[in-house]
Order: sequence, then structure tokens, then C-alpha cells
Amino acid sequence: MNNFTFHNPTELLFGKGMIKQLGDRVKKFGNSVLLVTGGGSVKRIGLYDEVIGILNENGIDIHEVSGVKPNPRIDKVREGVKICRENNVDLVLGVGGGSTIDTAKSIAAGVKFDGDPWEMFTMDGEPDKAIPVGAVLTLAATGTEMNGNAVISNLETNEKLAIHTPAVNPRFSILDPVYTCTVPEEHTVYGIVDIAAHVYEQYFSHTPGTPVQDRWAESILITLREESKKVLDNPEDYEARANIMLCGTMALNGLIAMGKETDWASHAIEHELSAFYDIPHGGGLAIIFPNWMKYVMDEGLDKFVQYAVRVFGVSTDDKTDREVALEGIEKTRQWFNEMGAPSRLADYNIGEEKLEIMAESAVSNKELGGYKKLTKDDVYQILKMSL
Amino acid sequence: MNNFTFHNPTELLFGKGMIKQLGDRVKKFGNSVLLVTGGGSVKRIGLYDEVIGILNENGIDIHEVSGVKPNPRIDKVREGVKICRENNVDLVLGVGGGSTIDTAKSIAAGVKFDGDPWEMFTMDGEPDKAIPVGAVLTLAATGTEMNGNAVISNLETNEKLAIHTPAVNPRFSILDPVYTCTVPEEHTVYGIVDIAAHVYEQYFSHTPGTPVQDRWAESILITLREESKKVLDNPEDYEARANIMLCGTMALNGLIAMGKETDWASHAIEHELSAFYDIPHGGGLAIIFPNWMKYVMDEGLDKFVQYAVRVFGVSTDDKTDREVALEGIEKTRQWFNEMGAPSRLADYNIGEEKLEIMAESAVSNKELGGYKKLTKDDVYQILKMSL
Repeated sequence: MNNFTFHNPTELLFGKGMIKQLGDRVKKFGNSVLLVTGGGSVKRIGLYDEVIGILNENGIDIHEVSGVKPNPRIDKVREGVKICRENNVDLVLGVGGGSTIDTAKSIAAGVKFDGDPWEMFTMDGEPDKAIPVGAVLTLAATGTEMNGNAVISNLETNEKLAIHTPAVNPRFSILDPVYTCTVPEEHTVYGIVDIAAHVYEQYFSHTPGTPVQDRWAESILITLREESKKVLDNPEDYEARANIMLCGTMALNGLIAMGKETDWASHAIEHELSAFYDIPHGGGLAIIFPNWMKYVMDEGLDKFVQYAVRVFGVSTDDKTDREVALEGIEKTRQWFNEMGAPSRLADYNIGEEKLEIMAESAVSNKELGGYKKLTKDDVYQILKMSL
Repeated sequence: MNNFTFHNPTELLFGKGMIKQLGDRVKKFGNSVLLVTGGGSVKRIGLYDEVIGILNENGIDIHEVSGVKPNPRIDKVREGVKICRENNVDLVLGVGGGSTIDTAKSIAAGVKFDGDPWEMFTMDGEPDKAIPVGAVLTLAATGTEMNGNAVISNLETNEKLAIHTPAVNPRFSILDPVYTCTVPEEHTVYGIVDIAAHVYEQYFSHTPGTPVQDRWAESILITLREESKKVLDNPEDYEARANIMLCGTMALNGLIAMGKETDWASHAIEHELSAFYDIPHGGGLAIIFPNWMKYVMDEGLDKFVQYAVRVFGVSTDDKTDREVALEGIEKTRQWFNEMGAPSRLADYNIGEEKLEIMAESAVSNKELGGYKKLTKDDVYQILKMSL
């Protein structure tokens, strides 16, 4: 195990009706809020009105940024920063899925950043200050509700980049699984793939001596598999939604990465796809991950064997390690397919045209990969396998 | 899953040499420290001198309480509170095992408490204020390094009682597994039993729909089993010590209790043993737990079957659920025995004399148990089975 520091002060308020505690939590930080929301779903499920009602009851001034889209854009961040500065906002409250909360976090950092907000994403180093952030989550997926990450896209430059700073860890996050019961099947599936992908990025690692972190990761994957079946059979299964939501939060809050090197190459590759083609993040990951696995597995078959055996119950009888590993990867692809996730770039009408430029962009100015360091050609091969 | 709130802002600094960050962390809170230590071990391993050196280098005023013993006493808390008040101490720094850190936490709360510190333990409700606490851990066992609990004994009244308040969560905890490499075998084993016992108290629960929390708990138990063998074979196995230390912290920081009812009857019964006979907490738990399991298992065999199968690999072929459950319990006892933990009260020369009064005391003024609510007679029977 490597040395590590773990510090995650986000307060989780988890369960049915926990929104009732919103007023109390917001008031800890002041009485002026920037409410950040996405499209229509928070209004459709009545959450928007409920939040406005609670904030009004508590005498809190409300400013707003709405219309945040998937693969959220830097324009909304700029808009929010301006409003916060002009109105001396105390807390940025993201109500929605990962895109909304990432926008809220980026605004909170942008308020304290001297320069255009996009520079926070392109500069060396990370912003280290932000006004407080709160979150009300409506989609189990990114884990942003309990970490310091935010991913923002700039369509002018075809870039999708992240900040990672404890300054934007939500001070509190309200997670009511009921809000996720009405998420359409497609987005439910993308969320589940995203959660699994976060686990993979941290699970496949060469750091020795991390048995309990590995088992925690496997715990999340096994639970996701079991609960994904239930939730696709019955979208309103509260317990299944709750379990998936908890898995999403715990998959990317530092728990399973304790003392481990991590990978994140597949995410970087997918970010290129989303930046160039604006496809759903979870869809891109479902395509890329099995191909990444196949491409890198020979760097350390043991971990892929462990994955196949423990997560999918693959038998090792009369098989080589390579056969067991391949069976685990095939079962991964099958799981994603059975849920209805895409398996080829062709499913999004993506052809060979931009593979080269995406591969170039994925490796530009950064080291890529942990399980296997990836060159531009490696990325190109993985994209090609994904056609 | 039940609704829950999770908030654990302790910063963990984990690994070899992390003590180097002590000065930086202490200075965040001020420049006057009460250093709380136990017997000789922190001096023997050179840690005491290192801590003093770092505090001096950073220009921090040092006040001291030393000589904290296992089953730590309220007298030391009173002593520390007095020193803190007289010297306007900014941070209480516990350097040692659970007893030392619990004393430090109790002092920190006592400073802000209006009344004799023992009243914090006997009153209704919990103290809600404390001066900041820091910890340097030298024993993997209680989990106090990342929670708001502190257990203190009063030998005058034969009571061993706890406070539970986020106010005393350490602001930072330095966990260097090297410090645990010189812990004598007996105390290493008690620590491992204590960690397993914490997991049991939260694992055996009737709350439905908690698959991932259950698997995280099983992850800790399986890892403990594997690593305990390694560490008893080679006490200086850094990786094994590191894994056990991490298990200890994560077993009682709220992770595996998310959304679950918990039990804690066995701890309450053991606290009576320690209060009346001053025996080691881990030794008492090793005796009580298998008997508690046997006594309560019929309240819900399914969880005991799951435990036997997943943690000990017990086969279910041609067996009733009851037989599988009993085999898991027997394997628990065997594991404790193989490590050298006691299995009967007779090992501590404890006979029938005080069983009745201990049973009475265990249930006085409180509900006992979650998996099965225990009456005085139930406690008496469990103690009798343990003779």
C-alpha cells in the first residue's frame, strides 16, 4: 500500500425526504444562494418547487442559473460567477445530476479565481479557493456529490477538462433515491456504467498490498450488477435505486483509491469522444472500457483473473489465466449490453475520421494510464478496436 | 436501507513517515498543545522524542498528561482539563493507542463542559463542544482515530461509559503502520479481535437492503483473517500491519453502518467485564462474541449463514441453515483461539460470583441489543455460556 492522505468532509444526508434538512444546512453558510439547475427534470418531479419553497421559508435570497446541459459548458460557469460576484452569494447550490453539480462547483471556484474561469481548467495546478457548495443529487452516476472534481466542456476548443480541488467538495449533499426513480432507462444505464467505470479506474492498479480496497471495489461492482437488474425490471424499486445511489457516491469519494495508483486512461479517451461528438459520457465508457481491458490485460493478468472470478464468478477450471481474464472482460461487455448500453462507436455513427486527432489530443501534454502507460498509438488502437 | 447522515471530516495521514506532517497540522489550530501519552511504549519506539522534537521545531508550547492506562480512567481526564484551562491550550494531541486517544478526546470535550467531566458520561445527551483534537495512532484496534467516540472508566463506581459526539472527531489522525510493528503479540491479537467485534456489531442487523454495506464489512473481516496470519508469523510485515491498521479505522468510522440498525450488546456486556475485572477489552470480546452469536442466531439465521459462507467459505451442501450458521460461529471461535485469544472467562479466573450483578448493570437504564433485544436474564445466560 502506498502512503496516502484521505480527507472528505462532505456531509451526506441520505434517504427519503432528507430535503427537509436543506434550509437548516444552507443557513449555516449564509442567506444568499445561487441555485444551479439543468433542464426540465427537476421541475417535472416537483423538486424545483420544493427547493424554492424551502429557501423562501427560510428567508434565503435566491439567484439562478438554469439550463445546464449534459457535458456542461464553460459559458454557464461564466454566467454563474458573474451573478455570484454581483450579488455577494454565500453558497452555490447545485440541484440535479453530475453536470449541474459540476457547474455549481466550477462557479464556486470561479468566484474566487482571478481570471477567466476556463483558465482554472487549462492552467498548471488547481484552484485552491471557492465559496461553499451544496448539492441535491437527482442522478446516480458521477460521484461529484462527495468529491472535489468538476468536469467542464469548451465546445469552441473541443476540450473537456477537469479541476480537482478539495475547495469545491460539497459541504453537504442531499441524496434522496426517490428523485432517481423517474430517471429514464437510458440515463439510468449510463449512470450505472459510469459508476462501474469509476471503480475500474481505481481497481485495475499495480500497487501491491491493497486487499481491502480491492474487496470494497468488488463489493460495489457486485452490488451494481445485482441492483441494476432489479432497477431495470422495476424502475421504482426504492431499495435498488438507493443501493445504486450509494454505490455511485462511494465509487469516487476516495474510499477505494486509498493508497493505490489509479489509471483514468479510459476516462481521458472518453472525454475526447464527448468533446468531439458530444455523446453521453456513460455511453462512451461502455464502448471504451471492454476494449481498454483487452488492450492492457497482459500488463498484469492476475488482477483481471481476480476480477473475473470475484465479480462474475468465472470458474478457473481447465483454463489459462488469459482465458479467465478474457471471460471476465466478455462478461463485462455482456452486462453493459444486456442493460442496453452501446458497444461500438458505430452505434453513435462515429467512424474512423477523427480517431487520429482524438488520440493525439488524449495524450497531448499529459501522461496517460496507470495499468499501462498509453502512447498516442495505443489510444488509436483502442479507439480502432471500438469502431 | 434506512435514512442516514454521514459526516466524517477527520483527515487521515496514512503511511510510513507521515509524522513529518505533524507540525504543519498542529499549527492550523494554534501554538499550544496538550500532549497525552500512555505508558512507556511511545518512548521505547522513539516516537515520543520525535513528537517533542517536531513540536519544538515548530515553536509550539507543550503541556503534558502521561501515564494513561488501558481502560483509561476519569482521573486523567480531570487532570488534562485542568491543565488545558490553566494554559489556554489550543489542541489536545493523543499519541498512543485507543486509551490515550479516548483520554485526549474526553479532555477536549471536558474543557468546554460546565461541570465535572464524569457527568459528560452519565448525563442524558452528549457534550456538543470540544477544543480541537489530533491523534497519532500506535495500535490498530478501537477506530477512535476516525470517530467521535471515547470510552472512559470510573473504578470508584465500577462503570465504563462512552461519549459519542462529532465535536471530538480528531481533526487529523496520523497512522504510521511502522509504530504497530513492535506491538507485542498479545495486544496485536486483542486489537484484531476488537476490530472484528466492531464489524460484527454493525454487520449483524435486521435492516433489509444493505448489500454493499454488508460486503464492505465482509471485506474487512476476510482481510483481517488473511492479514492476521501474516502478522503473527512475521510481526514486522509492514504491508500486513498497514492492512490491519486501515481495517481498524474503517471498521468504526461510520462506513459499514450507513443506513443500518446496529447492535452493540456484546460491547456493553464486555464493558461490564472490564469495569468489574479490569481485563483487556479485546480479550473480553473474544470470549463474549461467539457465545452472543450462538445465543441470538435464531433471531435471523440468514445473516449468520451469509457470514459463514462469505467470510469463512463454509459449504452449504447437505446442511441445514442452522448447521451452516453454527459452523461459521465455530470458525470464529477457532480463529480467535488460533491467534491466542482467550475463549473462556475462566482464562481470567472469572467465576460465577458477579455474573448477576454484571448482567443487572449491563441492562440498567438502557435498551440492549439490536439483533435480539436482551433482558438481564439473556445477558446472564450469555455470561454463563462464557464461563
